[in-house]
Amino acid sequence: MTKDIHICNSDEKNAFQDYYPDDYSHCFGCGRLNEQGLQIKSFWDGDESVCRFLPKNHFTGGRKDILYGGLIASLMDCHGAGTAAAAKLREQGIEIEKGEMPKFVTASMKVDYLAPTPVDTEIELRGKVKEIKGRKVIVDVSLAAGQKICAKGELIFVQLRE
Amino acid sequence: MTKDIHICNSDEKNAFQDYYPDDYSHCFGCGRLNEQGLQIKSFWDGDESVCRFLPKNHFTGGRKDILYGGLIASLMDCHGAGTAAAAKLREQGIEIEKGEMPKFVTASMKVDYLAPTPVDTEIELRGKVKEIKGRKVIVDVSLAAGQKICAKGELIFVQLRE
Repeated sequence: MTKDIHICNSDEKNAFQDYYPDDYSHCFGCGRLNEQGLQIKSFWDGDESVCRFLPKNHFTGGRKDILYGGLIASLMDCHGAGTAAAAKLREQGIEIEKGEMPKFVTASMKVDYLAPTPVDTEIELRGKVKEIKGRKVIVDVSLAAGQKICAKGELIFVQLRE
Repeated sequence: MTKDIHICNSDEKNAFQDYYPDDYSHCFGCGRLNEQGLQIKSFWDGDESVCRFLPKNHFTGGRKDILYGGLIASLMDCHGAGTAAAAKLREQGIEIEKGEMPKFVTASMKVDYLAPTPVDTEIELRGKVKEIKGRKVIVDVSLAAGQKICAKGELIFVQLRE
């Protein structure tokens, strides 16, 4: 477990973001080709998606000991978008490493901040697909530090037409 | 006008964020003491608040030519929080440079992404106070690139008890 990078268990392979097309891999939050980005990685864990991440020390809120709320929204956005794309593939019965990840954009995001999120702590995002209807996917995302859920989000994604 | 830093007109002084207490100035988005942060600056423009900002080139979305949605949410959060604090002072008839900025936290944020926001473009955030009720302030924020509004947000802030 190294500080300042994302955390993934060694038995976790096939991160959603590793299968984005090259021309869609420049996202600051999750693009594998954005060298200055966060490069978060999301995986299936049964019916839920999971992403573990240890933010760099400069992502503080107003106070030095609290995680930046904008980063929380950013992580939810990227983890949710990856979940939407992976869910769309799964719906079609296609394994993630065998298909081409569809491209989704965020239509809207609602984040409720329930409690301050500490810094210097590995956080865990969990996504749950609430609805898939045509090109629209709604994902609920929670963010926990330790066992405590500090924020919840509902995000609506729309698949781009090719 | 220099790239990679925030933009403020020379006649704009007294940014909201310049008056945050030192122990509340570490925010990645708007803290003047966060050297690795964005250090956005917000000002009154009549009844509205305004913030102009030129993001660094690595804040891309999936595609290289589109601004990162997580950054949009982050800017709305910081600009909205500054607006809430300044509005609370203004409600009490206190000038920003003569009072102590109250501390607000984000309770919830709803962002609607209406159109892709281009990169390499100065963006303008405008805030409008929708409601002040005790310790709660609701702020509507729009984000425009050129003349086009690309995203709208509604954010609820709560003032911390001292």
